[in-house]
Amino acid sequence: MKVATEDRFYFETPMDQGWGLYFYYFKIVHQSAGCETIQFYGFDGQGGEGKVYGSEHDVVPYQLTCYQKSEVAPKWYREAVFYQIFPDRFANGNPAKQINEPKKNSFIYATEEDDPFYIRNKADEIVRWDFYGGNLKGIKNKIPYFKELGITAIYLNPIFEATSNHRYDTNDYFKIDGILGSEDDFRELIEALHAEKIAVVLDGVFSHVGKDSRYFNISGLYGESTGAARDQTSEYYDWFTFNHYPDDYKAWWGVADLPEVRKENPKYQEFIYGDLDSVLTKWTSLGVDGWRLDVADELTDEFIAGIRKNLSAYPDKILIGEVWEDASNKVAYDTRRKYVFGDHLQGVMNYPLRQQILDLMNDERSLKEICEEMIRYQENYPSDFYYNQLNNIGTHDTERILSMVGNSMEALDQAWGLMFMMPGIPCVYYGDEAGLTGGKDPENRKIFPWKTIDPGIFENCQKWIRRRKEYDVLSYGDFFPFYSETQKIFGVIRYTEDAYAIYAINQSDEEQQIKVSELSSPRAFQGDYAILDNIFEDEILAPKGSLFVYNA
Amino acid sequence: MKVATEDRFYFETPMDQGWGLYFYYFKIVHQSAGCETIQFYGFDGQGGEGKVYGSEHDVVPYQLTCYQKSEVAPKWYREAVFYQIFPDRFANGNPAKQINEPKKNSFIYATEEDDPFYIRNKADEIVRWDFYGGNLKGIKNKIPYFKELGITAIYLNPIFEATSNHRYDTNDYFKIDGILGSEDDFRELIEALHAEKIAVVLDGVFSHVGKDSRYFNISGLYGESTGAARDQTSEYYDWFTFNHYPDDYKAWWGVADLPEVRKENPKYQEFIYGDLDSVLTKWTSLGVDGWRLDVADELTDEFIAGIRKNLSAYPDKILIGEVWEDASNKVAYDTRRKYVFGDHLQGVMNYPLRQQILDLMNDERSLKEICEEMIRYQENYPSDFYYNQLNNIGTHDTERILSMVGNSMEALDQAWGLMFMMPGIPCVYYGDEAGLTGGKDPENRKIFPWKTIDPGIFENCQKWIRRRKEYDVLSYGDFFPFYSETQKIFGVIRYTEDAYAIYAINQSDEEQQIKVSELSSPRAFQGDYAILDNIFEDEILAPKGSLFVYNA
Repeated sequence: MKVATEDRFYFETPMDQGWGLYFYYFKIVHQSAGCETIQFYGFDGQGGEGKVYGSEHDVVPYQLTCYQKSEVAPKWYREAVFYQIFPDRFANGNPAKQINEPKKNSFIYATEEDDPFYIRNKADEIVRWDFYGGNLKGIKNKIPYFKELGITAIYLNPIFEATSNHRYDTNDYFKIDGILGSEDDFRELIEALHAEKIAVVLDGVFSHVGKDSRYFNISGLYGESTGAARDQTSEYYDWFTFNHYPDDYKAWWGVADLPEVRKENPKYQEFIYGDLDSVLTKWTSLGVDGWRLDVADELTDEFIAGIRKNLSAYPDKILIGEVWEDASNKVAYDTRRKYVFGDHLQGVMNYPLRQQILDLMNDERSLKEICEEMIRYQENYPSDFYYNQLNNIGTHDTERILSMVGNSMEALDQAWGLMFMMPGIPCVYYGDEAGLTGGKDPENRKIFPWKTIDPGIFENCQKWIRRRKEYDVLSYGDFFPFYSETQKIFGVIRYTEDAYAIYAINQSDEEQQIKVSELSSPRAFQGDYAILDNIFEDEILAPKGSLFVYNA
Repeated sequence: MKVATEDRFYFETPMDQGWGLYFYYFKIVHQSAGCETIQFYGFDGQGGEGKVYGSEHDVVPYQLTCYQKSEVAPKWYREAVFYQIFPDRFANGNPAKQINEPKKNSFIYATEEDDPFYIRNKADEIVRWDFYGGNLKGIKNKIPYFKELGITAIYLNPIFEATSNHRYDTNDYFKIDGILGSEDDFRELIEALHAEKIAVVLDGVFSHVGKDSRYFNISGLYGESTGAARDQTSEYYDWFTFNHYPDDYKAWWGVADLPEVRKENPKYQEFIYGDLDSVLTKWTSLGVDGWRLDVADELTDEFIAGIRKNLSAYPDKILIGEVWEDASNKVAYDTRRKYVFGDHLQGVMNYPLRQQILDLMNDERSLKEICEEMIRYQENYPSDFYYNQLNNIGTHDTERILSMVGNSMEALDQAWGLMFMMPGIPCVYYGDEAGLTGGKDPENRKIFPWKTIDPGIFENCQKWIRRRKEYDVLSYGDFFPFYSETQKIFGVIRYTEDAYAIYAINQSDEEQQIKVSELSSPRAFQGDYAILDNIFEDEILAPKGSLFVYNA
C-alpha cells in the first residue's frame, strides 16, 4: 500500500480468485483526538468518483472486472464503419422490381412510398406479413452507393428462410429466403462486397425458430408428418419443450410464432455450430465475416462459447451479441452472464450509448450523469471488449434517430458526431443518412427512399465516416469526456501519443470560450502526452452547435 | 261477366285508373236454403291459386300490375348469356403481371392463390385496400376464353377511378381507374369484345361517391382547396347533405367512406345523365351496351327515368337495376317505386330466383312454395320486364354457388340448369365455372384460378350456355313449373308453338316414371300447342339427378 502525496491514496491487492467480477468498497477509519470515526467509500451508482457512505449497510461496492482473455478484434472490425440493412426494406434489384418468390398469403406494398403497416386481427395478432420486396441483388446493386457513403462493413438483419419480413422466425437455417434471392445471389453479394473491401456480418437467431419452420412445422408447410409439432419421433422433437403436445409449447416471450429451442440440447448445439456441416460453418465458410447473436441473454453461456469456439478457427471473424444493458454484470434468468470474460462474445451492441446520446441531445439527464455513465461502461468492460462495441443511435428495434432529435438535421449531425467519436464501432442504420424518420417498429422499417435522399443529411453522414476512416485516433485513441453544466458544454476527446480529436457540443445560445482543463470530468485525466498540453490549457472558441478539432 | 262451365268463373272489368298497381279480391256470396254465407277469396301469400278467407278483415288482395309501356329489350340482350366480372379479380394482362398505377398505401396480394382478406383496424374499418391487380388488358386477353365458354355479354363491376378494389366509391366518373388501365385500354377492350359480338354492361354507381372523390375530396387527394368537403363554394357542395361541415355528412347506410349524393339536385342530374357531356353519354357513346344501376332503391324514380330517357336515344342499350325483392311493389323510403311500369328500369337483377334455386337444392322450402313464388313474380311483373330480369345464382354480393350447394359439382350443374331454364337472362359470376368456392365478401372475390380451372365444372357451364344459345325456346318460351312433393320431383317446361324444353330434377334416391299432366303446379297450364300433347300425357323416365329434354 502506498499513500498518495496529497489527497489521494493508492492501494494494491492481488485478485487471486480467478476471473470474474470482484466487488469492493473502502472502510475509512478516521482517528482524531482519541475519537474514531468510521466511514465507507463505494460506488455512487455511475462511474467515476465514488461516494462516502455513513454505514456499511448502505455502501454500494465498486465492480472490478477480471477477465481471462483479451478479446482483440480483427483489424478490419476495429477500423470499420458499419451499415445495418433490414433486407426487405433496402432495395429491390430486379429489373422491373418484380418480387422474388412471394410468400403465399402475404401482402406486397403497392408503392415504395407506402408507410409500413402491420396487418393484424382483432386479437392484435399479425395475420399477414407485409413485404416491400427488397432483395440481395438490390444490396449488390447499391455497392456504388456504399462506396460513396464510405461504409466498410454491413450488418444484415436475418436472411434465412422465414415467414415474416424480419425473418427472426427462421424456417430453414440452410436456405436464403426465396424472396431475398438464391444462395447464388448470396455468394455473388459476398464476393462483390469483398471485392470492394466491405465485410458482412449476419444476424444469428438461435434462441427460437419459426412455428412454421422445417423443425417445428406446426402448419405442415414442410410436409404433413415431419417436424416436432407433427411427429413426436421427429429428430427435432427434443429441440423443443411441450407443455401439452402439440399446441402448448415454450415460446420466446410467449410469442407462439416463435417456439423456443432448448439451447442445452447437444443435438441442437451440433446443428448450429458443432458439426462440420453446421449452420455456422456453412455460412462462415461462404465468406461471412462475423455474426451478431440475437437475444444473447436467451442463449446459454455454453452455447455462446460453442459458437465462439467454432468461429475461433477463423481469426478474422467477429462475434458480437445483442445485449441491451451492461454486459459485464448482466444477470439473465438468475445467472450472471460470462459475456465479457473472454471466449464468449467479443463485443455487444451499444444501446446504452444511444440512450446517453439521446439524453444529452434532449436534455433528459444532467451532463454529469451522462459522463459518469459513459465512464462506468469504460470501467466495467475489459478494454478490448469496450472498444469492440457496435455503437448505434438507432436500429430496427428503436425509433429513428432523426425523429428522436426533433427532426433537426443539426442535432442528427451532433448525434452522429458523438457516435463516431466514441470508442466502439459506429453503425449507421440504413436510411438514417437519407433522412428517414419514424417511431418504433414498423415506422423504423420504411423502405429506403432512393428518390428523395436528403443531400444535407447524407453529406453529414459521409463527413463523419470520412473523419472516422481518416483519423485513426477515432478508432484507437483513449477516451475522455468533459462537461460544464453551466456553460452547457459537453465534449469528448480521443487521443494517442501522436494525435487527438475533440468534439464539443455547445448547447447554449452563444459561442463560448472553453478550457478543457477547467471543465469537469468524472475521472481524472490519465494521459501524459505532449501533444495534449496546448489543448488542455488553451482557450478554445466553441461556437453555438458543435466543434470538431483534429490535431496530429 | 261470364261464368265457367264447371268450377271456375271468369270476370272482366276495365282497369281505368291509369297505370299502377290494382289490388283486388273476391267476395263470394253463397245462398242456399234461404241462408246466405259470405266468403272472401284473395291472395294466399305466394302466386298461383288463391285462398278462401272467412272475413273481409283478413283477406289479402291480389296484385294486378298495369304498366304504361312494354319494356321490350334489345334482341341481343334477350338472347344473351352474361358473365359478371369483378375486374380486380379476373386477370392481369401485363406481360410480367406488373400492376398498373398501384394506389398509395394499398397492398398487393403476393400470389394469385392468396385468399382475399380485408385489412382492418380494431374499429373494424378497412384501413388499406387489397388488390390482385386484375385489369382491362387482362379481360381483353381472355376473349378467347369467353368464346370457348360461350358467353355473349359481360357485366363489369365498377371501373371508374376509386379508392377501393370494388370501386363502388367512385372518385372520378370520367376516368378509368389507373390500376385497371387507361381510357385507351377501355376503348380497345370494347372494340375487341364487340368484334367478337360480346356486349358490355357497366355498373352505374350514382347514389354515392367516394369520400376521397374529386367531388367530396375530404383528404385533399384532388387538391388542397377543392371539393365539397374543403370548399363550401365548391360546385359540388350542394350535391351533399352536411349535418355539420365538413365531418358529419349523410352517407350511404352511414358508411363514412361513401358520402351520399342528393339525387334530386338538378346539377347532379345534369352531370350524370343530362348534359351532352354527361357521365352516361360519355361512356355510352364509347360503345357501352347498357348499365346496371347500383342500389336502385336509393335513387329516385325521377333520376332513374332521367337515365332511361338518356339511354332511349340508343335503341340497343339496356338498363337494369339492382333490386333484391319484388320490384313491382317495392316500397323504398315510404315510396312505392315505379321500376316496372315503363320508362324506368327494363329489368332487375333476379336475386329472388337465386333464393328459390338454393331453397330447392337445399330442401329449405316445400316445392309448392317455391313454385308459387316463381309464379308470383311472373304474375306481378309485366311480361317483358319479367323476361328481362338478369338471373343469377351468385354475385359479388353473395356466397359462391358451389359453396352453397355443398361443393357438389352435380348440384351446381342443377343450379345452373334452373337458372338457364328460367325466363330472364342468365348471368354467370366469373369463376363459378372454374370451381371457385367461398362465403360472402371477401371470399366470393378470389382471383380467377387460371391454372386450376375444374374441367368438369367448366364443361357443365359450357353445356348450359350452349343449350341456351341453341334452343330459342329457352330465351323466348312460355314458362310453367311442376312438382311432386312425394316423388321429390321438380321441373320446369319452356315452350312455344314449335318447341319445348323440359328440365326436371329428381331429388329422390331412385329413377322415377313421371307424367307432367299428373304432377302439381301452382297455376293451370295455359298453352294449347300440339307439340306438347305427348310430353304432357306420356310417361317420362326421370333418372336420379336431372333430366333435360328438348323437342322441336
